[in-house]
Amino acid sequence: MNNLLEEIREIVGPGGLLLGEEVAGRSDSWPPMGGCQAKAFIRPASTLEVSKVLKLCNSAGQPVITHGGLTGLVGGARAGKDDFVLSLERMNGIEAVDIINRTVTVEAGAVLQRVQELAEDAGLMFPLDFGARGSATIGGNISTNAGGNSVIRYGMTREQILGVEAVLADGTIISSLKGVIKNNTGYDLKQLFIGSEGTLGIVTRAVLRLRPLPRSRNTALVAIEDFPRLGRFLRDMDSALGGTLSAFEVLWNDFYSLIVGYTDHHGQPLKPTHGFYVLIESTGGNEEADKTRFEGALEEAFDQELIVDAVIAQSKQQRDNLWAIRDDIEGLAKELFPPMTFDVSLGIPQMDDYVEEVREQLTERWPDSRMVVFGHLGDGNIHLVLTVGSLEKNEVRAVETIVYEALGRRQGVISAEHGIGLDKRAYLKHSRSTEEIALMKTLKQALDPKGILNPDKIFEQEEISA
Amino acid sequence: MNNLLEEIREIVGPGGLLLGEEVAGRSDSWPPMGGCQAKAFIRPASTLEVSKVLKLCNSAGQPVITHGGLTGLVGGARAGKDDFVLSLERMNGIEAVDIINRTVTVEAGAVLQRVQELAEDAGLMFPLDFGARGSATIGGNISTNAGGNSVIRYGMTREQILGVEAVLADGTIISSLKGVIKNNTGYDLKQLFIGSEGTLGIVTRAVLRLRPLPRSRNTALVAIEDFPRLGRFLRDMDSALGGTLSAFEVLWNDFYSLIVGYTDHHGQPLKPTHGFYVLIESTGGNEEADKTRFEGALEEAFDQELIVDAVIAQSKQQRDNLWAIRDDIEGLAKELFPPMTFDVSLGIPQMDDYVEEVREQLTERWPDSRMVVFGHLGDGNIHLVLTVGSLEKNEVRAVETIVYEALGRRQGVISAEHGIGLDKRAYLKHSRSTEEIALMKTLKQALDPKGILNPDKIFEQEEISA
Repeated sequence: MNNLLEEIREIVGPGGLLLGEEVAGRSDSWPPMGGCQAKAFIRPASTLEVSKVLKLCNSAGQPVITHGGLTGLVGGARAGKDDFVLSLERMNGIEAVDIINRTVTVEAGAVLQRVQELAEDAGLMFPLDFGARGSATIGGNISTNAGGNSVIRYGMTREQILGVEAVLADGTIISSLKGVIKNNTGYDLKQLFIGSEGTLGIVTRAVLRLRPLPRSRNTALVAIEDFPRLGRFLRDMDSALGGTLSAFEVLWNDFYSLIVGYTDHHGQPLKPTHGFYVLIESTGGNEEADKTRFEGALEEAFDQELIVDAVIAQSKQQRDNLWAIRDDIEGLAKELFPPMTFDVSLGIPQMDDYVEEVREQLTERWPDSRMVVFGHLGDGNIHLVLTVGSLEKNEVRAVETIVYEALGRRQGVISAEHGIGLDKRAYLKHSRSTEEIALMKTLKQALDPKGILNPDKIFEQEEISA
Repeated sequence: MNNLLEEIREIVGPGGLLLGEEVAGRSDSWPPMGGCQAKAFIRPASTLEVSKVLKLCNSAGQPVITHGGLTGLVGGARAGKDDFVLSLERMNGIEAVDIINRTVTVEAGAVLQRVQELAEDAGLMFPLDFGARGSATIGGNISTNAGGNSVIRYGMTREQILGVEAVLADGTIISSLKGVIKNNTGYDLKQLFIGSEGTLGIVTRAVLRLRPLPRSRNTALVAIEDFPRLGRFLRDMDSALGGTLSAFEVLWNDFYSLIVGYTDHHGQPLKPTHGFYVLIESTGGNEEADKTRFEGALEEAFDQELIVDAVIAQSKQQRDNLWAIRDDIEGLAKELFPPMTFDVSLGIPQMDDYVEEVREQLTERWPDSRMVVFGHLGDGNIHLVLTVGSLEKNEVRAVETIVYEALGRRQGVISAEHGIGLDKRAYLKHSRSTEEIALMKTLKQALDPKGILNPDKIFEQEEISA
């Protein structure tokens, strides 16, 4: 073991440094793709230990890949054989919820679901939520600016974070942990660490903003015939529900037909003959008034001829059944095997046309290809799941080119929620200009001049030094 | 006229460059404090002109102070005799509102009120709002991350901005004008220009996020006896109103008594004998359901013994009268003459104790001093207006020291909404650590190595170069 590792062991203690077989037994992505190849796996127990480790690594020019819950989907945590992994898994403390201030201070390794549960125990809510809640960590959520199911109402992770403590490449601790909503005292430094995928600093703690726990929930699935009506329905519902609209998930006909068609277990709450389906939900503070308002808004939409059919959930069971259709990604992946998944964002007016162009180009090249579309329409974010019958490298590249070039022409973005990591690096130019990418590199160079923090993620390290 | 100015005139045309008397006839702050001393006043008509001007100024090491609507309150636009002013006043275009996407793209010089009106004409709302709406520009709002009346519901300016176009010190145009809510493609560069007071780049255009126009509005003034009940009332109302709470303005007894006491024209909607008064408002999408919910929530608060008295506005006139009490800053300033005003942010649990400590220290040193307190409690932001009978420099410093040191001990921030500019520069250290300020300077050095953009604002330029 070399000197650097000896010194690191001094800092983190014997249990804080894994080597050899113990590293190989770890993973660096999800789903796991073989063991972790890193040279060492470091598990500091405090911000001070993170600081000391980084200071040593920076002096030695040693690359460090930070690990949270590994639920990212773009290879942002992948480590090579010369890298060290720094995992926040031992730093998972959660302070007592401050119910008056409605904040909670947590260490970066705290698991999202645990934070949600503690907030709920205190009569509050941490609104960030998505499928991987049981593994994803707050530090990872911050580093990737995670999205999820509640963005339409509460925003992305960025909007849930009041303060961040982070360690810079050289070990400097930047502690901006004030739990206030308004703070116009110079640059808002926490923004540097939110969504920068561990390339500008390692997030060690954060102050999270909590919200009131909803007391009512109304859910419906509605059918709509064409895209223009879909846009008007979104606008009208958002207006009629006055700030309580909490989900607006759109299923294109291809998605709905496939899901209610491949199995009997979802039933068929609405006939699969309409153009679009919307799973709409509203949460509020007064059960009776909220129900009146929700049903009134749907009636208005019928009167305006925006929707042609609707089913309103009358019980938790019925609500869960409606959501199960939207969430049956497993069924989707089985029917469209082998699947390719895209997570794109673009203006609602461009969406219909975009989907049709991609579909045409796919069909032209792969007549047997299939694609379904769904997503968070209220956030301008749709997912495409498709299969061309192969995951051969050239085919994947060709599909990616079709999907991203059509998007670039419409000012869309190639990653709404998932980030760039390694997997989308080659396509960054479809969403960001040369000048934007150059400015990102200026920031990287200023904060991490030796390029030790998650190098080669987002853009290639050597492009920066060059 | 020297060469640099000749070249600039070539770029912006004769009407785009003011010199001598024409500059002296301009202002650089509000209220105006004598004429503008700058050497030249440049009025580019396009982003390209801004870029060309900055490129020249950067080569020459010529400082440039950007001007918007001049409604900032911390000296952020003040210019010395060797500075050039660059005003965005000719760049005030507003593109057509995109009603499906709910966005509008504007030039930085567009006046806030005009944007609000055009949004409303399109059946939508731009929620940023405050008293200076008739002069303040969107570019200024972005550069200062303006707050205002709607933060509790919609957030600060930062939350209203989807995309920004800005020009860097060297003339590089960074165009991040995508109108999408979700964009996780590398660093979120627009955050650099929001709230950095013109020191990192000049904002030239922006894509603004619009919201549904509310269809209902319910307003009440309520009386509360003690601070703990105030915190519980805020939490309960936010929960009961389920996302529709749009104002929660608290008046300490000293404020309310003074305003309803110095004149008859406000009447006395509630007796001036209670500890605290809250002006609470809820906006929604369904008149009947929203009224039921609002009144139900207040009844619940009575039952819980949180509030002891309340008056609900039954007409627009009554609502305006209640707001007039909150907004009578002019009356306040006359009664507390000469006034000093503070805009601070801190955790709600610390607030009561903080106000009492400041009050005691003031009274100890100036037995005849008077202070009133009010603010956006839901945002953790309160304003102190006080007088010690003098604005003599030493007295001001002594008051500032009392206010800011008591705040620093409670992890508060010295500027919730207004920024740092020149006037609060000496106190930045009460809100931000040495490491945070050093990181701000690293950013400044990376983006503006010659220090030409609004130098000496937020921190002293020579500290950076040193």
